[in-house]
Amino acid sequence: MKMHNLQDLLFHQIRDLYDAERQLVRALPKMAEAAETPELKSAFEAHLLETQGHVERLERAFEMLGHQARGTRCPAMEGIIEEGKSTIDLNAEPDVRDAGLIAAAQKVEHYEIASYGCVCSWADQLGLREIKDLLGQTLDEEKLADEKLTRIAEHRVNLQSAAH
Amino acid sequence: MKMHNLQDLLFHQIRDLYDAERQLVRALPKMAEAAETPELKSAFEAHLLETQGHVERLERAFEMLGHQARGTRCPAMEGIIEEGKSTIDLNAEPDVRDAGLIAAAQKVEHYEIASYGCVCSWADQLGLREIKDLLGQTLDEEKLADEKLTRIAEHRVNLQSAAH
Repeated sequence: MKMHNLQDLLFHQIRDLYDAERQLVRALPKMAEAAETPELKSAFEAHLLETQGHVERLERAFEMLGHQARGTRCPAMEGIIEEGKSTIDLNAEPDVRDAGLIAAAQKVEHYEIASYGCVCSWADQLGLREIKDLLGQTLDEEKLADEKLTRIAEHRVNLQSAAH
Repeated sequence: MKMHNLQDLLFHQIRDLYDAERQLVRALPKMAEAAETPELKSAFEAHLLETQGHVERLERAFEMLGHQARGTRCPAMEGIIEEGKSTIDLNAEPDVRDAGLIAAAQKVEHYEIASYGCVCSWADQLGLREIKDLLGQTLDEEKLADEKLTRIAEHRVNLQSAAH
């Protein structure tokens, strides 16, 4: 597909995010199951519900752009999730594994912060206000999810796992 | 390898970052070569020099921990760089490709911000002040590199590529 303009790139990025978010919907239950610390387990469960909402927002963005919802393979999220799976399989004390799971999840959040940040900036430049506002809500939720993980790490999991 | 405590996890994460940064040293010249906008080309060139410094800082961190410098495969950076390569190969107008290259590079920066953020938080918790300060410098540089890319996007590349 020839990319003539920024709107073509925006569409391509939304397709990449659609694949990324759907990969994440499949991965988060495994992260929640592996987490030992109750706050972390419930943070992953809450973020799974949010992520299902992010998939729906992307479907609305496809509609606004006049396209069918269809992903394009996102190898970055594949690699990030592969690291998450290795963390689940680590031969580690449970709270050390939890610290690793937080790191894996923060890599996911930051990937999405970068992607949605670009998409919102492009939508703004293109005057696509509805798409900017819609996906800006997701961007804000990814930032809040990242901050929540930092709090769980610093107030709970890091303290426990440094105590061994 | 059994992960008994947070320091084992810190060491593992530093090995992951060592592989990630060395992958990036190989990828950045191709991103610089593909960039059309002069500010973007020179931002990639400047960040290559910084990244070489980040590799050296990790080598000093290995020394401080009493280990030989040795990476462990980082599939996340492999995936992120694969997306960067697809962007280089996009059949796109040059300034649209530049907008895509900025997005790809911001995904790299955010991956590193998440990783170094965790490493610094763990080093702080473990009282490893020298490692926290050393890698905290890298964390700051990754954040500044990300902000610089946002400025180049919003003041130059997005304007050009939205004009088609």
